[in-house]
Amino acid sequence: MKQVAIFAKVHDPRCQGVASELVTWLEERKCLPLVDTHLARHVGYARGLTEKQIRDRAELVVVLGGDGTLISVARLFSSRQVPIVGVNLGSLGFLTEITVEQLYPVLEQCLADSHRITERMMLDVTVTRGDQEISHCQVLNDAVINKGALARIIELEARVNDDFLTNFKADGLIISTPTGSTGYSLSAGGPIVQPLMKCVLITPICPHTLTNRPIVLSYQSVIRITVKSSFDEMVYLTLDGQVGVELQEGDCIEVSRAETTTALVTSPEKDYFAILRAKLKWGER
Amino acid sequence: MKQVAIFAKVHDPRCQGVASELVTWLEERKCLPLVDTHLARHVGYARGLTEKQIRDRAELVVVLGGDGTLISVARLFSSRQVPIVGVNLGSLGFLTEITVEQLYPVLEQCLADSHRITERMMLDVTVTRGDQEISHCQVLNDAVINKGALARIIELEARVNDDFLTNFKADGLIISTPTGSTGYSLSAGGPIVQPLMKCVLITPICPHTLTNRPIVLSYQSVIRITVKSSFDEMVYLTLDGQVGVELQEGDCIEVSRAETTTALVTSPEKDYFAILRAKLKWGER
Amino acid sequence: MKQVAIFAKVHDPRCQGVASELVTWLEERKCLPLVDTHLARHVGYARGLTEKQIRDRAELVVVLGGDGTLISVARLFSSRQVPIVGVNLGSLGFLTEITVEQLYPVLEQCLADSHRITERMMLDVTVTRGDQEISHCQVLNDAVINKGALARIIELEARVNDDFLTNFKADGLIISTPTGSTGYSLSAGGPIVQPLMKCVLITPICPHTLTNRPIVLSYQSVIRITVKSSFDEMVYLTLDGQVGVELQEGDCIEVSRAETTTALVTSPEKDYFAILRAKLKWGER
Amino acid sequence: MKQVAIFAKVHDPRCQGVASELVTWLEERKCLPLVDTHLARHVGYARGLTEKQIRDRAELVVVLGGDGTLISVARLFSSRQVPIVGVNLGSLGFLTEITVEQLYPVLEQCLADSHRITERMMLDVTVTRGDQEISHCQVLNDAVINKGALARIIELEARVNDDFLTNFKADGLIISTPTGSTGYSLSAGGPIVQPLMKCVLITPICPHTLTNRPIVLSYQSVIRITVKSSFDEMVYLTLDGQVGVELQEGDCIEVSRAETTTALVTSPEKDYFAILRAKLKWGER
Repeated sequence: MKQVAIFAKVHDPRCQGVASELVTWLEERKCLPLVDTHLARHVGYARGLTEKQIRDRAELVVVLGGDGTLISVARLFSSRQVPIVGVNLGSLGFLTEITVEQLYPVLEQCLADSHRITERMMLDVTVTRGDQEISHCQVLNDAVINKGALARIIELEARVNDDFLTNFKADGLIISTPTGSTGYSLSAGGPIVQPLMKCVLITPICPHTLTNRPIVLSYQSVIRITVKSSFDEMVYLTLDGQVGVELQEGDCIEVSRAETTTALVTSPEKDYFAILRAKLKWGER
Repeated sequence: MKQVAIFAKVHDPRCQGVASELVTWLEERKCLPLVDTHLARHVGYARGLTEKQIRDRAELVVVLGGDGTLISVARLFSSRQVPIVGVNLGSLGFLTEITVEQLYPVLEQCLADSHRITERMMLDVTVTRGDQEISHCQVLNDAVINKGALARIIELEARVNDDFLTNFKADGLIISTPTGSTGYSLSAGGPIVQPLMKCVLITPICPHTLTNRPIVLSYQSVIRITVKSSFDEMVYLTLDGQVGVELQEGDCIEVSRAETTTALVTSPEKDYFAILRAKLKWGER
Repeated sequence: MKQVAIFAKVHDPRCQGVASELVTWLEERKCLPLVDTHLARHVGYARGLTEKQIRDRAELVVVLGGDGTLISVARLFSSRQVPIVGVNLGSLGFLTEITVEQLYPVLEQCLADSHRITERMMLDVTVTRGDQEISHCQVLNDAVINKGALARIIELEARVNDDFLTNFKADGLIISTPTGSTGYSLSAGGPIVQPLMKCVLITPICPHTLTNRPIVLSYQSVIRITVKSSFDEMVYLTLDGQVGVELQEGDCIEVSRAETTTALVTSPEKDYFAILRAKLKWGER
Repeated sequence: MKQVAIFAKVHDPRCQGVASELVTWLEERKCLPLVDTHLARHVGYARGLTEKQIRDRAELVVVLGGDGTLISVARLFSSRQVPIVGVNLGSLGFLTEITVEQLYPVLEQCLADSHRITERMMLDVTVTRGDQEISHCQVLNDAVINKGALARIIELEARVNDDFLTNFKADGLIISTPTGSTGYSLSAGGPIVQPLMKCVLITPICPHTLTNRPIVLSYQSVIRITVKSSFDEMVYLTLDGQVGVELQEGDCIEVSRAETTTALVTSPEKDYFAILRAKLKWGER
């Protein structure tokens, strides 16, 4: 009896509707749906499970929503690799590439173990202040170091393994996975990186030195960013655009490849380049 | 008896030394040096004047310091056009193009009314909330609207005169003078604009829509930016990188050409392109 | 009896159809249509006029086709300012902003002298080799200096008025009007310049020095580009993407504002920003 | 008795001087210097070998010159991996990172088999026209498809493995190794890729579609570019900036990872990031 976690975008009636149907569909196939307290109400369950319980028991995950929802679920499952089916209920997503129409055929494949997966590399991000670890997290997209809105610049020392890379004077710095390359990094001028690759992308945000360019590094790199000078202003770390950490001068952010990857069930119809063309509207002009 | 204002970077001993010499030099030429309370101590004056007193009386201004100091002095004199001699005491500035060696020859020219000037356009920036004007200021460089560090994006509606330009989804927006084009706007991908020109430059910061590009508009444009959506996060307006205003959803920032210009005394030796080559290190590779 | 020139994209049956209708419409209103030999056949005229004859006699010009057709007509009329109605028969153009539906209402306005015009600045481009002028032309969009396909780089010395700007080491250089800013210059990373402005835009193509950026110069600038070194390969000058000139080491290209402007009849419905949004597909994502 | 090939930049007296000394140094250590006919004269040899003879016999290669010389030597040795010592005799190179002072200590290490190497990925480039292979070559830096100078645009269909990527409408396309990322690709807006990585970089040159961005692909990608339309103008393929091939409509350029790599002997003192900072002049402003 397969245990299948369902996550849905909160407050979205359409997601809730699909979730209800999905619960019925799974029960008919002798699967056990796992839902959290919030979603439980919407699918007619008396009570739901905690995130931790779902994480420990799920053998398959279905995400109903957008890329943002999937990214937070990926972080939850960063310690246990479970296949994730990302279903977009609005516009096509880079991660939620399965349409509602494809959902049940894809799930049939998953139950029959004939589904295809792409493994997406994640990054492990640790912040230390003096001797103390003040934050530790995995990200599927990116870790972003950013100046406060009223500061004009921050200075960050970057080292790769034991080699000095440079001192970035910039608005901030994006350290991203291939998956994250089509997110914030793209807006900051970074390249598109095929998501099946294993590498790390460093993209400066509005660098003061005009020759500072996005850099693609080996997946084996251990990147250490030290906050050099914050000019009396706060500096912030944002993880996957969802979790924020306040930084101080001297704090060190260490980024390296995470041990687990996100196992994304792929669309039977769309390859990555088709999604890229659709999302970036290539070829329409 | 000409009244000559002296402004120096605070806490910089070298600036204070040059200021002392300059006071003596001016007194010998029957000029009246005007200094503020802080600088008064360093040049041996019993007491100084208020900024307002200096602004109302000065017939010539000498700035000892860097571009930052000159920009704040230019804002002070935005209601009265007085020639400003910008002296750099460190590295060459875009605005403080006179060296200490050139200072006295240039001042001789100023006293003899044979100096050359370039008029730098300024922008008039007004923020209104509902019916109320909450901020009004002139800038020599730029007005920058910026998201808070933990927000991922803001949405700004831009209108030019009465025409809709676009909704920018971005980290922020820089509205800059030609003088400001080599400042923050350049880091965000903006073009270099010859500073004697009269025009307005709109440069988006990390735009979500990849085809959003820097736009150069006529100096007669009245630009109105409305904060559409701040996604529960603060939005900030920074004026010349020095003055900050917190914005709310619905606030309108109106930017148009200021009535007065900054009258910058130009170096007898260096043209603008020489400064550009030196600052951007062109031709060294 | 108003003489109205008609230019149509050659070999395009739809343009020819509209031209025929337009001839009838004009004759009914006692206007004299002027067409060239090629178009004459398609509108049932025994014979047409030479380009020179049309240029000397036309009081109004209608262009049926795309931006390319209009640009070549603008060059033809660079010595005589005549209002030009640009009609797009395919997709919306930056210059051909009138639709077929708007054509007759706009022409009614033109005949009643109640039409609106925007004056588009043109550039005067002269090439000299030693003492000799080898080319002289006006352009509405741009003058482009380009390396041959097998060369890797060319070196160009740029002077503005009498000041040295820089030596560009690049694939080439685009010198463009505001109108041309949405053409080739945009692909090379240049800014968008409001077409009613008067200024000149220099955009390097793949510059070797990463800090070389697009530069916006005053309309009064006289720009002189000297071909420094061509590394045994040909260098080419392309005028409005339509006329080519082979250059040699030592050749000087002088670019300044042309005396006449192109008088474009504007759409009664679409402002420039609406065209910009439509062409660049802003706001669709 | 180790056979050591020496290649020197032709016509450079300093290279010839160092070559002479090196011949003596090698002979004293019972090594056999291999030189071509041209260099033979300058080092006092009666006659030299053909390139093919050198390629088949060399066990170690010393290149005296710049990156251009090394790149052509790398192409020569693309079928046999032999360690290459790149010595710069002018300015620091990305590939010729050994200084003249380091040459002999590094050679001692090579003879003692205690030298360090980085393997640089190469690309295999094949051009087919109809059924016929018309060109086949390996490159260390890049394969560039370029329009002729007078054409405004070319259209190229790109496929990766069997998936359609996009139709590029652009001035051209750069397909580059990580080593080539700091060459032409960087001027066209491409990212910097750590040279020890294995991947392929596609960078469009002045793309018409503003959302076309540089793309980093897996090293296992087989890229097929088809020349779709050349608008009556020639299209060219340039290999490592040194070898040119004329292309026609319908030609297919297939690019994949080459079987051999270039084995570059690394500097004992400078890591890659130090070279990057020095070449791009980071941190000087």
